[in-house]
Amino acid sequence: MSANPRIGVLGAGGRMGRILIQAVQQAGYQLAAAVERPESSLVGADAGEIVGIGAVGVKVVGNLEEVLKDCDVVIDFTAPVATAHHLELCRKAGVAIVIGTTGMNDEQKAHLDETAQHTPVVYAANYSVGVNVSIKLLELASKVFGDTVDIEVIEAHHRHKVDAPSGTALMMGEAIADALGRDLKQDAVYCREGHTGPRERQSIGFQTIRGGDIVGEHTVMFIGEGERVEITHKATNRMNFASGAVRAAAWVVGRDARKYDMKDVLGFNDIQF
Amino acid sequence: MSANPRIGVLGAGGRMGRILIQAVQQAGYQLAAAVERPESSLVGADAGEIVGIGAVGVKVVGNLEEVLKDCDVVIDFTAPVATAHHLELCRKAGVAIVIGTTGMNDEQKAHLDETAQHTPVVYAANYSVGVNVSIKLLELASKVFGDTVDIEVIEAHHRHKVDAPSGTALMMGEAIADALGRDLKQDAVYCREGHTGPRERQSIGFQTIRGGDIVGEHTVMFIGEGERVEITHKATNRMNFASGAVRAAAWVVGRDARKYDMKDVLGFNDIQF
Amino acid sequence: MSANPRIGVLGAGGRMGRILIQAVQQAGYQLAAAVERPESSLVGADAGEIVGIGAVGVKVVGNLEEVLKDCDVVIDFTAPVATAHHLELCRKAGVAIVIGTTGMNDEQKAHLDETAQHTPVVYAANYSVGVNVSIKLLELASKVFGDTVDIEVIEAHHRHKVDAPSGTALMMGEAIADALGRDLKQDAVYCREGHTGPRERQSIGFQTIRGGDIVGEHTVMFIGEGERVEITHKATNRMNFASGAVRAAAWVVGRDARKYDMKDVLGFNDIQF
Amino acid sequence: MSANPRIGVLGAGGRMGRILIQAVQQAGYQLAAAVERPESSLVGADAGEIVGIGAVGVKVVGNLEEVLKDCDVVIDFTAPVATAHHLELCRKAGVAIVIGTTGMNDEQKAHLDETAQHTPVVYAANYSVGVNVSIKLLELASKVFGDTVDIEVIEAHHRHKVDAPSGTALMMGEAIADALGRDLKQDAVYCREGHTGPRERQSIGFQTIRGGDIVGEHTVMFIGEGERVEITHKATNRMNFASGAVRAAAWVVGRDARKYDMKDVLGFNDIQF
Repeated sequence: MSANPRIGVLGAGGRMGRILIQAVQQAGYQLAAAVERPESSLVGADAGEIVGIGAVGVKVVGNLEEVLKDCDVVIDFTAPVATAHHLELCRKAGVAIVIGTTGMNDEQKAHLDETAQHTPVVYAANYSVGVNVSIKLLELASKVFGDTVDIEVIEAHHRHKVDAPSGTALMMGEAIADALGRDLKQDAVYCREGHTGPRERQSIGFQTIRGGDIVGEHTVMFIGEGERVEITHKATNRMNFASGAVRAAAWVVGRDARKYDMKDVLGFNDIQF
Repeated sequence: MSANPRIGVLGAGGRMGRILIQAVQQAGYQLAAAVERPESSLVGADAGEIVGIGAVGVKVVGNLEEVLKDCDVVIDFTAPVATAHHLELCRKAGVAIVIGTTGMNDEQKAHLDETAQHTPVVYAANYSVGVNVSIKLLELASKVFGDTVDIEVIEAHHRHKVDAPSGTALMMGEAIADALGRDLKQDAVYCREGHTGPRERQSIGFQTIRGGDIVGEHTVMFIGEGERVEITHKATNRMNFASGAVRAAAWVVGRDARKYDMKDVLGFNDIQF
Repeated sequence: MSANPRIGVLGAGGRMGRILIQAVQQAGYQLAAAVERPESSLVGADAGEIVGIGAVGVKVVGNLEEVLKDCDVVIDFTAPVATAHHLELCRKAGVAIVIGTTGMNDEQKAHLDETAQHTPVVYAANYSVGVNVSIKLLELASKVFGDTVDIEVIEAHHRHKVDAPSGTALMMGEAIADALGRDLKQDAVYCREGHTGPRERQSIGFQTIRGGDIVGEHTVMFIGEGERVEITHKATNRMNFASGAVRAAAWVVGRDARKYDMKDVLGFNDIQF
Repeated sequence: MSANPRIGVLGAGGRMGRILIQAVQQAGYQLAAAVERPESSLVGADAGEIVGIGAVGVKVVGNLEEVLKDCDVVIDFTAPVATAHHLELCRKAGVAIVIGTTGMNDEQKAHLDETAQHTPVVYAANYSVGVNVSIKLLELASKVFGDTVDIEVIEAHHRHKVDAPSGTALMMGEAIADALGRDLKQDAVYCREGHTGPRERQSIGFQTIRGGDIVGEHTVMFIGEGERVEITHKATNRMNFASGAVRAAAWVVGRDARKYDMKDVLGFNDIQF
């Protein structure tokens, strides 16, 4: 882990890229490069001014190769084809890379794995530190409470989300079911309407709220007699993903060539609870 | 409204009766009588000791007639047949009565209406002041927000509840739909699972949580872009029903013979908003 | 109120300007102009690309006069000196203006009032629809509950906020105190530590949470026996201010020359509750 | 741990005694005895009828010695002098005892320790399973988040509570401070009013809500950029203490003579996290 890593941000003009630039600044690290597609109207503009935080003295460039030598690590939340190209460049230059790109196919994932044998790569399904901590807390609470409580998962997302429940809610449900030796397929309850009968202990209830521009909220309730424990994660903007990715970037600099995930970054295997 | 009404509690040894006794004490009014079935083992015991608040100097009696002359008003959360008998006694004695009994049939309700021509009667579906206030707030918020927000109703009750959503949640949904000119039958959404597509504006979502011994919680969210207003009612024990009933009892003493509900007691028609 | 108002956004490259551009798009209105200081490096760039929502075909200009003829109304969240200049231009052109600028001195406010005699001006302390609705709800709840409950205000803001409680929390406290005939100066309680003694009924408690980048959350609890009503406002980003300002902009087009506030825009005086 | 332990409840007519009787029933264990002071008017009444759950066939007796032979374990939430007497009787009879009595002096505690060498004794500051789990979760979250978040503790209790913050809130604060190597005396912030300046990272904020009959709610927020994790414990009635004590009673039957606490009962030392 480097005290002052030089970090490059790819896709600097996109939604995540803009937030990554701010996250690097907030963490007090050096923004070493900001890269966009060569045809973007933003090339040549100051990366800070694009983001609305004032000039930071780093011009957006249209080609990663120009600036890779100035970087210890790059962060890539772009698209599969671009990411494959970035992986190649990083491998050649021996620069670490943190990848948040979604939608990679099997071939692209295999390419990522192969690259990780030559340069350090962080690749996680969810970079939010809070989500990763929450899942660990859920495992612990589930093991202690066992079958003495009723467990309900409530999630809320924006009105444009087309599926329910969220992937994170299901990931939480899986973690709980695993800890309790239950089968989520059998025990999940997604609907309650009309005459439901009394609740069964082994059920894991999912409630899905949709509205406005809610970024993502998840609460798990462990409900007993006369008391309740709730574990809640609230994302209010994409900064939580960005700051988790920046934490991963700082952590991975100087490590061995290998593929890492957020459990490695957060040291879950090293902390004694 | 009497400053220091003398209040009798019927069904004094039952769940609601015990709480009514405490609510009378907490409000600082006089507990004038406590009545149980004549065969109860509690007849003769001190009403306060039964409840666990120490002796209050009022013995439980097995017959309302013995003590009706000591009461300005009685509160009855018992059962339909008993309530019909109590109504007759109150009519004869000209004593006001507050009724929280559920499950009355049409004939019993007609008898209640008829009695209310001779002595004041309060009869409400829900005596909770908070629930009644919440519904008023929901109407106001719905009218101002109109179609600019997404509306979701979330409720939580104990594991033994056999129907969903709760009657109170549906009552809230009706109040919202009426204020917005929507049709709850058509716009209510009770389930979200799998590919749901984006949310429609006119939907009113209902989410139902079940677990432990939760007495009753209702939250309505008005979700816009970048903000949310939530109106929440939480019942933590039956005291809220009891104190609403005691408020009604104090309010009704000295009024004209008529049937009243909680809107009358709370003066919703008299307050300027 | 215009069905499709042509809206200009001033300070288009600033934090609020960027969000106002998005709010205009989301509301389905026409972005008619985007203005920045002439020396900004963003002049000439597409307003949508700056914001990160893709090109919208409106170039940022460095001078309001160039584009004022294309606007029915402009929205100004800039700074006092710039706003004074904008007011003059709008007066001459007969264009309506919505002002969210803070920090104006008495002379600048007098100038605003005087301008409003010639062209319609909306000027509000807080453009959030949700905050304005919440205060209305608090007044109503306070009047019905009276002295039967304990009232507590809890607010949360980001770690950089240097004062406590927030202006909005105090505004809520004032609304409650006024509705109850209390004196906030005397009844507000800001600290509880050590031996406090039992709570007094007339107190209005304020609890202040500070952390992270919380945009602004306010909850008021009305706490009785066995129940609680909570009214909560959560701002998750500046979009709530922006969309309130855009709602005001659409509403004010075509109105008489006068100064309006959000109570006018929301029609609180016209709705029957 | 016994599958069907025979449990005696001491102080059966008191607030906790009544709830303990219900907790034994709910857990499906045998209520083997219910004891009150010999002069109580409740002696001879059915323990179930006193509690309001209908007759259970166990009469309240005025003397523990009469019924101790029918018990595998007794639960004692009475008063120090009575508890000392009960300890003596349990030691002689070799019956296990679970003690929730508060306010014992040093001599009485020494007597308890000494008794525990002869018969198994459970003695805990807080029998709530949820509170004990919550503190474990707080330790874990604190260790993973480290100094990357702001930590705030919010608690709410009834209007009659005379001290602030609650003992449980302070216990949570101590657990957090210990996990982070901070000093709660130095880092706790109890008041925010007026010009506070920006928040300091190492602060641990305490917010105290007082109102109505709130039994006890504690929330700890770990607030980062764009996200927040919250761990909440809500007690809605004394049943959570009672069911924790009943869990302890069932667990301790057949164990070695020793003093145990809730960490032993919950097996925190045996579970792998």
